[in-house]
Amino acid sequence: MKIKCMKNDLLKGLNIVSKAVPSKTTMSILQCILVDCTQGNIKLITNDTELGIETLVKGEIIEKGIVALDAKFFSEIVKKLPESDITIQTDESYKTNIRCGKSNFDIIGKSGDDFAYLPEIVRDDYISISEFSLKDVIRQTIFSVALNDNNKIMTGELFEIRDDKLRVVSLDGHRISIRNLELKEKSENRKVIIPGRTLNEISKILNGDADSIVNIYFSEKNIVFEFADSILLSRVIDGEYFNVDQMLSNEYSTKVTVNKRDFMDCIDRSTILVKEGDKKPIIIDIKDDSMDIRINSTIGSLNDSIDIQKDGNDILIGFNPKFLMDVLRVIDDDTAEIYLQSPKSPCIIKDDEGSYIYLILPVNINTVN
Amino acid sequence: MKIKCMKNDLLKGLNIVSKAVPSKTTMSILQCILVDCTQGNIKLITNDTELGIETLVKGEIIEKGIVALDAKFFSEIVKKLPESDITIQTDESYKTNIRCGKSNFDIIGKSGDDFAYLPEIVRDDYISISEFSLKDVIRQTIFSVALNDNNKIMTGELFEIRDDKLRVVSLDGHRISIRNLELKEKSENRKVIIPGRTLNEISKILNGDADSIVNIYFSEKNIVFEFADSILLSRVIDGEYFNVDQMLSNEYSTKVTVNKRDFMDCIDRSTILVKEGDKKPIIIDIKDDSMDIRINSTIGSLNDSIDIQKDGNDILIGFNPKFLMDVLRVIDDDTAEIYLQSPKSPCIIKDDEGSYIYLILPVNINTVN
Repeated sequence: MKIKCMKNDLLKGLNIVSKAVPSKTTMSILQCILVDCTQGNIKLITNDTELGIETLVKGEIIEKGIVALDAKFFSEIVKKLPESDITIQTDESYKTNIRCGKSNFDIIGKSGDDFAYLPEIVRDDYISISEFSLKDVIRQTIFSVALNDNNKIMTGELFEIRDDKLRVVSLDGHRISIRNLELKEKSENRKVIIPGRTLNEISKILNGDADSIVNIYFSEKNIVFEFADSILLSRVIDGEYFNVDQMLSNEYSTKVTVNKRDFMDCIDRSTILVKEGDKKPIIIDIKDDSMDIRINSTIGSLNDSIDIQKDGNDILIGFNPKFLMDVLRVIDDDTAEIYLQSPKSPCIIKDDEGSYIYLILPVNINTVN
Repeated sequence: MKIKCMKNDLLKGLNIVSKAVPSKTTMSILQCILVDCTQGNIKLITNDTELGIETLVKGEIIEKGIVALDAKFFSEIVKKLPESDITIQTDESYKTNIRCGKSNFDIIGKSGDDFAYLPEIVRDDYISISEFSLKDVIRQTIFSVALNDNNKIMTGELFEIRDDKLRVVSLDGHRISIRNLELKEKSENRKVIIPGRTLNEISKILNGDADSIVNIYFSEKNIVFEFADSILLSRVIDGEYFNVDQMLSNEYSTKVTVNKRDFMDCIDRSTILVKEGDKKPIIIDIKDDSMDIRINSTIGSLNDSIDIQKDGNDILIGFNPKFLMDVLRVIDDDTAEIYLQSPKSPCIIKDDEGSYIYLILPVNINTVN
């Protein structure tokens, strides 16, 4: 194999496919990037059997061929080469020479015979959304995916298409995040649970353009994201997702409108007094037009206060400050609208348009303090 | 005690004195910042018995007093308060209230009776240099201070005043760094070994202005840096420093002038092939007007080349790439002048004015490769 391409084109491709290289594995072939130039284009492929990525790199094929190169070293070498054109050439034993200017690297490659190619994609059932929207819905929901896989389903997000709308849901037993999005085209109703890791990785690859389109293809075992010159294929999680509609309520006895920045600053201050791993709640005391925030710990105490607009009853309620912070950090509005019912009922933070809904369970402050 | 000051003034002071708070200690008083408002000004003091810092904070003393507060929490609280004036008030049990806007923190303070004040400073023997120069000479020498203290003297830097010049020297057994600086005023000849940690910390505090002056006072056991509203006092290291003049030679058989950026890029590339902790040398092959750089490892090999200007003989010599990189990174010239004598003699990198001299021992490439 012999190819020639610009450093920056190659580096862009390597950054994309590296996202499907596992950091630790016993199968050394999974740590490789397959450079496949047998089909008339320069294709980079990685596949860790859960997640696979293919991307095309602009360049010239001087001699067709294929080689698997260690992802880490290949990427680092290309990153540190001068900004110029790079020639990659392999011999029959897959020894690979990477040349750029006066720099000449020789590294050992593999045949790629053991490499697991991505399965064929059936392209009949799909939706299209912009890179911007996909990146946005992931950012606004991914934080409440469960991190430990005691319950596999909680480690993924539900992508549900119903009545030409996309609803994205994540939950971890303490909170639920929901983002709704209108689809531009008619789409078949369906539900799929996508692994959180897949969404994290694709979100890093997407450039977030409003004009660039991602096509999402569905099949029984896999989901495929196709955009720009790349394809990302991921297994889906088997099983029935939780019925979140059952958990949401439109009833409330108190509605609070609060400046998001002020509220975040208060919560941020309160966390100084909480040691890592310590589950101290912040106590929120809503009275008339002010929200008092209190926290007590072995280190000291904080009393803080924010002006609010309130409809309904006064209420005293406790929360894990991190859960409130996670939500406030991702909503783009300047104010947050918080709906409360009782000290034991979940609070709901949502906008009027229903584009986002966040539910957070309170902490029982009578037993804690 | 009751005082009032602006958040940013207080925060600036806290950032300065925090540098002398040890990250780990069994003596909890050392982790405190003493707020001493008994003398008519707001003085913050920290002291870990090796290094002590005092700084003054602008503000109003409403009631004189003194309190020792946990450095970490005090700093974090002030950092996260709104940009406004802060009132700090202690009661007779040293419970301390920190108030800013609607935020009210209560934390536990200490009397400060156990606190070790900084010793009195005798101000007769001193030199003055600009913050810029002091920061610069530290940056350009600190990297070759020995990190482990098998030999205590190597963990410090020699500050030597001779003939109204300051010479700063560090060495770690593999290399020597020297910076020379003309002093503006007549100064008594003297030598002092300053702990590397002291220089690291003061370097972080100095803003690096060319117009701001640092006075450095010498006494038998201590050195004092006085600048702006701060005083930093450090123990000096006892003992006789190495005679570095003996180790330097002005003789050479090869002089190479190389573009610094090109050389750094080459070394940077070569380190991809070296695993952490692996002591692979880079081989430098100087022939005619080019310098070939080679490295071989289990991962692969690199052959690189740079155009140079050469006076004298061709030479083949090996180096630890990190030692070359450390020097190239701190010199400000676009080109580096390298003086070589034999594959077994140290190389010297210096400028014509003699403002810096770096010596690096080579690696014997015959035994390694």
